[in-house]
Amino acid sequence: MLLPHQPERDPTELNVKPDSTVVNLGRHLLAEFYDCNSNILNNVQIIEDVMTEAAIACGATVVEKRFHHFSPFGVSGVVIISESHLAIHTWPEYGYAAVDLFTCGNSCDPKVAYDYLQEKLHAGSAFYSELKRGLMNLGTQKMIESPFHLEAQMATSTAGAAVIGSQKGEEI
Amino acid sequence: MLLPHQPERDPTELNVKPDSTVVNLGRHLLAEFYDCNSNILNNVQIIEDVMTEAAIACGATVVEKRFHHFSPFGVSGVVIISESHLAIHTWPEYGYAAVDLFTCGNSCDPKVAYDYLQEKLHAGSAFYSELKRGLMNLGTQKMIESPFHLEAQMATSTAGAAVIGSQKGEEI
Repeated sequence: MLLPHQPERDPTELNVKPDSTVVNLGRHLLAEFYDCNSNILNNVQIIEDVMTEAAIACGATVVEKRFHHFSPFGVSGVVIISESHLAIHTWPEYGYAAVDLFTCGNSCDPKVAYDYLQEKLHAGSAFYSELKRGLMNLGTQKMIESPFHLEAQMATSTAGAAVIGSQKGEEI
Repeated sequence: MLLPHQPERDPTELNVKPDSTVVNLGRHLLAEFYDCNSNILNNVQIIEDVMTEAAIACGATVVEKRFHHFSPFGVSGVVIISESHLAIHTWPEYGYAAVDLFTCGNSCDPKVAYDYLQEKLHAGSAFYSELKRGLMNLGTQKMIESPFHLEAQMATSTAGAAVIGSQKGEEI
């Protein structure tokens, strides 16, 4: 039996800060990959393979997946995981891929999927923004009605990562 | 033959500002729906239907779709459209749904899908944040390496919409 994407109400399964009663149901990494290998970006089988491998590498459980090649260029695809989803859209003609890595619970880490994809897409540079989705008051078990919170933004390259913003925890 | 999700390089097919040579390949609405009907959120067939209808209502072309019900609660699903994708994750136990509406080109409007979903999920309140993904210099046909840009944020209710931020065009 598959677990629900929000596994249980056990606080240890949520992204709980020790000193806080506010948790977020989801972590969402919006990733921008630049200067990628265009042949890889236009190959639907490779994209499906690396996205599936990225899901597994980050600790996720693959539930369903769908990938599609567009004519003349581009691939779109989604991997539904027990912990939410990973999605990609590629523009081979610009060497660019837009990727979303949305996970719930603490059993997987979307940043691992990001690092894996940056390597496998041969991305010369990349950005990610980590957002908190679905803020909840753990004490009242009520949702906190607000837009997403920006947890962090990073630029990364093969030379390593560099912080480009320090808006950790800021609501926007 | 299906069109690519980035239809062509014709500037009129991109989100071009008349006075700008910077365009964005994608529009991404991150939507948070609160106080929804929990029975709807936990019904995989209804969620698949309303997400598919939302795609069609906003002018998108459905390519593939996958929906999954988790035990004991929750639905995850994705509709791949020619113009990118729509994704949903529901937490019926909290009356909450996290939705992503990612479109390319000007043939469809993700805000229409947002409005449709707010009604069909019986959401008492909702937020959306509209992001620009994939900024490109139209003159050089080169990608501009940066995080997403925040185009707008809105809170909406059945009583109407209210602007909660004025960060239109701001880079974050």
